[in-house]
Amino acid sequence: MSFTRHPAFQKLLSLRQNPVDLTKELAPDRLEKMLLKGCGFSLFYGTERVTEETLDALYLLAEEARVLEKMQRMQAGEVINEIRGVESEKRSVLHTAMRDLFDKRQEAPAAKAAALLAERELTKLENFLEKIKGKFSHVLQIGIGGSDLGPRALAIASEAFYKPGVQPHFISNVDPDDTISTLNKLDLSKTLVIVVSKSGTTLETETNEAFVRDRFQKAGLSPHDHFVAVTGEGSPMDDPSFYLASFYIWDFVGGRYSATSMVGAPLLSFCLGIEGFKEVLRGAHEMDLHALKSPLRSNLPLLSALLGVWNRNFLSLPTVAIIPYSQALVRFPAHLQQLDMESNGKGVDKEGRSVDFSTGPVVWGEPGTNGQHSFYQLIHQGTDPIPLELIGFKKSQYEKDFSFAGTSSQQKLLSNLFAQAIALALGQKSDNPNRSFPGNRPSRILMAEQLDLYTLGALLSYYEHKVAFQGFLWNINSFDQEGVQLGKRLATQLLSHFQETPSPFPLGDAYWKALSL
Amino acid sequence: MSFTRHPAFQKLLSLRQNPVDLTKELAPDRLEKMLLKGCGFSLFYGTERVTEETLDALYLLAEEARVLEKMQRMQAGEVINEIRGVESEKRSVLHTAMRDLFDKRQEAPAAKAAALLAERELTKLENFLEKIKGKFSHVLQIGIGGSDLGPRALAIASEAFYKPGVQPHFISNVDPDDTISTLNKLDLSKTLVIVVSKSGTTLETETNEAFVRDRFQKAGLSPHDHFVAVTGEGSPMDDPSFYLASFYIWDFVGGRYSATSMVGAPLLSFCLGIEGFKEVLRGAHEMDLHALKSPLRSNLPLLSALLGVWNRNFLSLPTVAIIPYSQALVRFPAHLQQLDMESNGKGVDKEGRSVDFSTGPVVWGEPGTNGQHSFYQLIHQGTDPIPLELIGFKKSQYEKDFSFAGTSSQQKLLSNLFAQAIALALGQKSDNPNRSFPGNRPSRILMAEQLDLYTLGALLSYYEHKVAFQGFLWNINSFDQEGVQLGKRLATQLLSHFQETPSPFPLGDAYWKALSL
Repeated sequence: MSFTRHPAFQKLLSLRQNPVDLTKELAPDRLEKMLLKGCGFSLFYGTERVTEETLDALYLLAEEARVLEKMQRMQAGEVINEIRGVESEKRSVLHTAMRDLFDKRQEAPAAKAAALLAERELTKLENFLEKIKGKFSHVLQIGIGGSDLGPRALAIASEAFYKPGVQPHFISNVDPDDTISTLNKLDLSKTLVIVVSKSGTTLETETNEAFVRDRFQKAGLSPHDHFVAVTGEGSPMDDPSFYLASFYIWDFVGGRYSATSMVGAPLLSFCLGIEGFKEVLRGAHEMDLHALKSPLRSNLPLLSALLGVWNRNFLSLPTVAIIPYSQALVRFPAHLQQLDMESNGKGVDKEGRSVDFSTGPVVWGEPGTNGQHSFYQLIHQGTDPIPLELIGFKKSQYEKDFSFAGTSSQQKLLSNLFAQAIALALGQKSDNPNRSFPGNRPSRILMAEQLDLYTLGALLSYYEHKVAFQGFLWNINSFDQEGVQLGKRLATQLLSHFQETPSPFPLGDAYWKALSL
Repeated sequence: MSFTRHPAFQKLLSLRQNPVDLTKELAPDRLEKMLLKGCGFSLFYGTERVTEETLDALYLLAEEARVLEKMQRMQAGEVINEIRGVESEKRSVLHTAMRDLFDKRQEAPAAKAAALLAERELTKLENFLEKIKGKFSHVLQIGIGGSDLGPRALAIASEAFYKPGVQPHFISNVDPDDTISTLNKLDLSKTLVIVVSKSGTTLETETNEAFVRDRFQKAGLSPHDHFVAVTGEGSPMDDPSFYLASFYIWDFVGGRYSATSMVGAPLLSFCLGIEGFKEVLRGAHEMDLHALKSPLRSNLPLLSALLGVWNRNFLSLPTVAIIPYSQALVRFPAHLQQLDMESNGKGVDKEGRSVDFSTGPVVWGEPGTNGQHSFYQLIHQGTDPIPLELIGFKKSQYEKDFSFAGTSSQQKLLSNLFAQAIALALGQKSDNPNRSFPGNRPSRILMAEQLDLYTLGALLSYYEHKVAFQGFLWNINSFDQEGVQLGKRLATQLLSHFQETPSPFPLGDAYWKALSL
C-alpha cells in the first residue's frame, strides 16, 4: 500500500500539528525512559521530538506497512528488488546471507543457498591467504562506489586491530591523479592488488586496473602474480590467466550492501586476519538476527527508521547529519551517504507510481568533536533544523587514554557528545539575540561499549537495516539504482567525441553538439 | 537593509513563479552564452534555472545590497564583524591582507598594517625553515576547526607539489584514538610539531599537545626542540621556554578564513617550500583583487553567490553539493562545509533582528566520479533537487595520464563531469516510470586549466568571497560563531561531573542531574 494511504499516516499528520517542545519537555526521566537497548547498543531518543503518542502512531505505521514481514521476506531471499508491472531487476536481496555463517542459519532455500556460496568463498579466501602468507605487506583495492566506500570505511575504522606491518590502499576515481598518487606510495613488489567489479566492465575500474598493470609490467613484475579478481562468476574478469585467484559476488548482493561479501573480505581479512574479519561478520549477523526477530517495539534499526520518517515526512526536515564521536569512523558517513541516498533516493514506489511524499534525505557528516568547530554553528543557530544521529563509545579503541586537566580524552569526547544533544534540545534564551539558541532541535544518540570488530559489524548492519526498514515503510525499492544510468550514457557519448577532438577546452560548439542537444 | 525589504527581492519573488524549465530551454547557445571567465576560471551557469531576467534582478539585488562596497570595506579593514546595537566581536575581517604581499597593496591603513604583520611573520617563517633545514621529515599539525580543515584540505590537494620525502600529519579530534593512530605513524625524532590555537586555550588542542609532548618525553626527546606555536601574541602559548618558535595570528582573521595565515603557512611551506606556498598566496591574492575590483557583472564569486541565493531563497533548495572532479580535492568540501555553514548558518541579521528568510544551506560533497557511484541516484531521481557546484580541470596535476579504450583518464573524468550537468538539466522520459528522470535540476561548472598551487589559492579565495558576498546579500554577519558557545559550556559542566564519577556508562540519574535540567 502507498505510504500516504495508511490510516497511521493520517494520525501522524494530525500529530505533527503539535509536536513536543523539547525546550519545555526535556527532563531526566524522559531521557532515561526513552532508551532502547539491544545487541550491545543503547539508543537514546529522548532528544527526538516525539511523545508516547507519536511512537504509538509510528509503530502502528510499521505494523500497517508490515515491515517485519518484509524484513523476513528479504532475509529469506524472496524477490523483493523489483518494481511491479514494469521491467526491473527482479532479484533477491541477500547481503544478510553473506554473514549467516554462525549458529542460527536461515532455513529458507534461497537464503541457505546464498549462505553456502558465501561460506565456500570465505574458505577459498582463507586458503588463499594461507598460500600467500608473508609475500605481501601492501594491499591495494581498485573499485568504485560500493566496491570502495564500504570496505574503505571499515578498513579505516579497524586500523587499531591490524596485523603488524600491513598497509591498505584504495584507488577508486578515474582521475589519473588518484592512481598516480596512490602508486607513489606502494612498493609494487610487495603489493597484492584486488580488483573489484561485479560485471567486470566498470569503466573506472577497468581503466585503473590497466593503469596499474602497466606500472607492474614497467617495473618488471608479472601482474598475474599480484592481481586478484572479485567479480561475478563467468564475467570477463573471471579468467585465471590474468589473476592469481577469483572470488565471486552475485547479483543478490547490491554494491552498497556488499562490504561483508567478497567485495570487502579479501582486503579486510588481509589486514585483520581471517578471524578478525569473521568478528566483523559475527557482529553484522547478530544485528541481522536482531532486526529479523525482535518484535516491533524492541527493534533498534526499526526505531531509528521510524524516527527518521517522523523527521523527514512529518517535521519536513530534508537532511540528516551522522556524527560519530570516534575519529576511526571518519569515512563511515561517506559509506552511509551511499547506502542511504542510493537506496532511498527514489521517486516511484514499488508499483511504479510517482510518490507524493519525500523519500530519502541528504545524509552527510563528519566526526565529533571536529564538527563542533565547523558546521555546528548552523546546526545551533541556522534557519533550518538538522536532525543529528550521534554515535559514541564508552571506551576508546586503543585503550591508551590520556589524562589532562583532571579528565581523560575519552571523557572529554563523551561530555561533548551528550552536551550537544542537550544544547540542541534545550536552547538558551538571551537578551543578546545573537547569543540566543532556539533549541527544540532533534537528535538521537547511539552508544556502545567500544568500537571493536564485532561492534563495527553490528553498526554496519544496523544502518543497512535502518535503510531497508525506511524503504519498507515508504513502499519503495531500496535495492536498485536506475538513476545512475542517464549520466553514464551521456558520458559515453561525450567520450566518443573526445576520441575525435582531443582538445576539449575551451568548450566549443562541437563539444556540445556531440550531446545531440 | 533587511534582505527581504529590497525592491529586487519582490521582483525575484515574482520571477520564482515561473523559473526556466531546463528540459525545454537547454541548448548549445545557452551553454556557451552563460559563461563568465576571470582569474583563470570559467564558470558555466547555463545549467542553472535562471534567465537573463532573473540575472538582471539578481544583479539589481546585489546593487541594492551594495555588496561591492561591502567587499571594499572588508578588504580595507573596516570593522564589519559586528551586530549593531548589542555586544558583539566588533572586529575587522582581514584574511585578504594575509596574501597582500604582491604588487597592488591595499592603501587603507588597517589593511596595510595587517599586510605588514603578515609579511613579517612570513619572513620569520622563511628564516625558521632555513634554520631547521634537513632536521625534520614529518610535520604534525595539532589544531581543530579552522586550524585543521583548511590547512589539511590544501595539504592533501597539493601533494603533487611536495618537496621530496616530506610527510604531513594532523591531529584534531580530542578522541584519544586519533592521537594514538597518528603517533603510531611518526618517527618522533624527525617530527616537527605545529600547535595552532589563537587563544592558546582550545581544550582539544591543549589536550592533544600535552598528549604528544608526553610521548616525546617518554622517547627521551625534548619537546622544546620539536614544537612550534601558532597563536595570538601574548597568549599562554606564546612562550619561548616551551617552543622553538612562535608565529602570530590575530583576531582579524577568523579560523575558517585562516588557511593562508600562519595557521596554514608553516605546514604548507614545510611541504611545498616557501616559494610553493607563496604561489598559493599569489593565486588567493589575484582572486581577492578580482572580487574587489571586478564590476558586478564580471565578478565570479559574486555570480556564484547570487546563483546560490536564487537556489536557496527563491527555489527553496536547502542544500548544496560541491563535487570536485579531482581526487586531490577530496577534503576540500569538508573545508567549505565549515567555511560556508559556520559563516552563514545564522539566525539574526546585522541589526540583531531574527531573519524571516533562509540563510546558509547545508554544504556537503565528495569527489566525482566517485559520487556518481554513490549519492547521484538521489540527485537524479530523489524527491528533492540538490543544486550542484561541479569543479573541473583540463589537465591532471601529475600530467601522467593513461590511455585506455581510446581515451585518457582525464578525458573520461571530464566527460562524466559535463554529462552529469546535462543529464540533470535535461532528464529523460521513459515508458518505464523507474527509468524516467524529471530533469530541470540545477548545477554549475567551474573549470580551470590545472589544479596547480596558484589555482588552488585562487579556488580557496573564490569560495571565501562567495560566502562573504552571500552574507552581504543577506545582511548577516558571516564572521562570528556565537552558536558554538552553548554546547561548549554544557560540555564543561558534564566534564566536571566526570571528575567526580569516573564511570559514565550506563548513563544514570546522577549524570543527567549534573546538567541541572
